This record gives sequence, C-alpha cells and structure tokens, in this order.
Amino acid sequence: MIRQVTFTLPSFHKGYHLITSFVLERLGTLPRTGILQLFIQHTSAGLTLNENADPSVRRDFETFMNDLVPEDYPRFVHTLEGSDDMPAHLKSSLIGASVSVPITEHRLNLGTWQGIYLCEFRRHGGNRRVVATIIGED
Amino acid sequence: MIRQVTFTLPSFHKGYHLITSFVLERLGTLPRTGILQLFIQHTSAGLTLNENADPSVRRDFETFMNDLVPEDYPRFVHTLEGSDDMPAHLKSSLIGASVSVPITEHRLNLGTWQGIYLCEFRRHGGNRRVVATIIGED
Amino acid sequence: MIRQVTFTLPSFHKGYHLITSFVLERLGTLPRTGILQLFIQHTSAGLTLNENADPSVRRDFETFMNDLVPEDYPRFVHTLEGSDDMPAHLKSSLIGASVSVPITEHRLNLGTWQGIYLCEFRRHGGNRRVVATIIGED
Repeated sequence: MIRQVTFTLPSFHKGYHLITSFVLERLGTLPRTGILQLFIQHTSAGLTLNENADPSVRRDFETFMNDLVPEDYPRFVHTLEGSDDMPAHLKSSLIGASVSVPITEHRLNLGTWQGIYLCEFRRHGGNRRVVATIIGED
Repeated sequence: MIRQVTFTLPSFHKGYHLITSFVLERLGTLPRTGILQLFIQHTSAGLTLNENADPSVRRDFETFMNDLVPEDYPRFVHTLEGSDDMPAHLKSSLIGASVSVPITEHRLNLGTWQGIYLCEFRRHGGNRRVVATIIGED
Repeated sequence: MIRQVTFTLPSFHKGYHLITSFVLERLGTLPRTGILQLFIQHTSAGLTLNENADPSVRRDFETFMNDLVPEDYPRFVHTLEGSDDMPAHLKSSLIGASVSVPITEHRLNLGTWQGIYLCEFRRHGGNRRVVATIIGED
C-alpha cells in the first residue's frame, strides 16, 4: 500500500523549526508497519531529525551552520541571487532534502528525543512544498 | 511492485554533475505512485539533489567542499591511496551515497529547480555503479 | 512484504565503528529484491556507509569531524548536557540518522568497499536502538 500526501509548510523565518506535529496532522491514519518519506521540493531548504525539546539546540544549529557555510565566502561565483543563496544550496546538500522514518503499530517510530526539523536556509524562503510518501501494510 | 535497474555512469571529472536525464533514460516506465532510490556503490563519490539550472552552483560546490575537507589536512593518517582519497571518503558521508525521490503520476516528483547530482570526489574515479530501486504501484 | 526488526547495538566508544556483520546477523533471510532501511532512534549518533577495510579511515573520520564541529565552540548556547552534546547533535544531522541499502538476490547490494558505520558522537552514548525496515518481494 502506497499513499502520497502533498502539503505546503507555512513561511518560516531563516533557521531550524520543529514540524513534527504539523506533519502528523496532514498524514491521516498510518499503516501498521512501513516507512514515511518526507521530501522537500526545494534546493535552499532541508529536512532533518534532531532534538525535539530544547530550542537552544535549534539556535546553535543556526549559528554553527552559518559559520560553517558563510554568506561572504570570497570564492563563491554564484552570487546574483543574494548572499544567502549559495550557502543555502550547500546546506541543503549537507543536511539533505528528505527524511525517512519507520512506522510501527500505526505510529512514527521516532526515538524519545527525535523531532522533524524544517531547515529554512533563506531569509525569504516563503512557503515550502513537501511530498509525503507512505509505504506500508496493515 | 519492486523493480531494480543497475547501470554504470560514464567517467566524470572531479566535481558535481547533473545526471537527471541520464538516469531517467535508464529507468523505463515509472509506476503511478512510489519512490525511486538511487544508490551509488562507492565510498568516494556521492549523490545529492540540488539546483539544476546554473552551472556556477556546481562550480561553487566543488570550491567550497574542497576547502571544507582539504587534501593537505595534516592530521589525516589514511594517505597511502592519494591525497584526494580521505577527503573523498569524508565528503561521501557528508553528502550521502543515495537519494530517494517520490514518484507521482509516473514521473519523478522533483521540484522545479531540483536535479540529481553525481558528486565525483576523486580525480580518477572512473566509472561508477548505481543501483536504482523503484517501489511503486499503479 | 514489509518486515521490521528492532535491535540494540552494544555500547561503543566515541568514534566510527563497522557494524555490517552485526546488523546482518539480526535481519534473518532477506527478500529477493527490495530495500533495507536502518534507522537509529537517537540525536547524538548516526549511521553512514563508508570504507570497510582500513581502520585508519575510521580514525580520520573521528579526527576530522571533531575538528569540523569542535566541543569548545564559543558560540554554542546549548552546553548544559556536556561539551560533547551539541557537537553530537550537529554531526548527527550532517551524517544522518538512517541509511538505505538495496537488496538484490537476497543480499545487501553494497559495493565492494562499502560497510555500515555506527557513528557514536558521545563519550558515554550507551546502547543505541536501531529499527530495521525491510521492504521487498520474492
């Protein structure tokens, strides 16, 4: 059994945002066993799993990743679309455009501390489209 | 329905290369709904999704990733296979060896600007083998 | 056909560890064709694929990743859980919490040099839980 749901995330500011509940509300009933893939249709945003409790983790993600891939990198050639564009592309491939999570007994089988992050790498990224694909059986 | 296709990529020079069309030509008819996984059977190359239009993005990937994981890193111990070998292994795990893309209405459901990159991290990587697994239903 | 196996990895010291054999022993008979997903239920450890022969590769991973995401990063705010905690979260998202490997003729279709790494990013990470999901057909 394969099912797809496409949805749009609201516009988030640049940074890392917990979207686990938002995603779950859009998926409907999950199969007994399977896998959920979330896929973001963009090259300047990403999806990842990380700590779901303390907002300071998401702040440190933003600080560190900005230092790792700086906007003023003197050797970048692709600069016409704004100083945050090329860093956003690089972060997107370092973090990844999709996450896959096992489904067990009709629930996402995340660890206690795992949540789903939207990683918004641009200052004005706007709405982001996500394709959720559920492969499962009852 | 699960189907696999194995193919070899031509030898690319070190850098980031758009292979979306090449891959699609090898897959045959896609199911109505599902997921395509592309898996590269190597530890010094990678696959990722990123901007499919402006070649300067791929050039900046090459520049930045070489600076991030430099060949002359003084603390590397694994140096016998060439100065580009250990950086290639690290980049492969940072970028990843596989990408998964949703299939919708018999097409890859990529965003407008998303393309599939082969990331060739070695100067003489040679041909690279890819296993494509299609899980879908009509 | 979808099957899940959950298992616990023994406590490994901080670093990169080859777990291919350990994992295979827990999976039972694999289907003829399909995909194995391994998912680690933690935010301070990761899973990746890389070189399966020379232990110096895993040592260089540890050296390089510690330099890339240092413990004494002065701009980290999330420091209460130990100096290795925030770096562990960041490494987990850079490397990833899951790997997916094609299954062909009842075997993992890894390349000759590919092995599965547990990436233990904490000094006292303890046991780590992994959910293996096998999607396949005979």
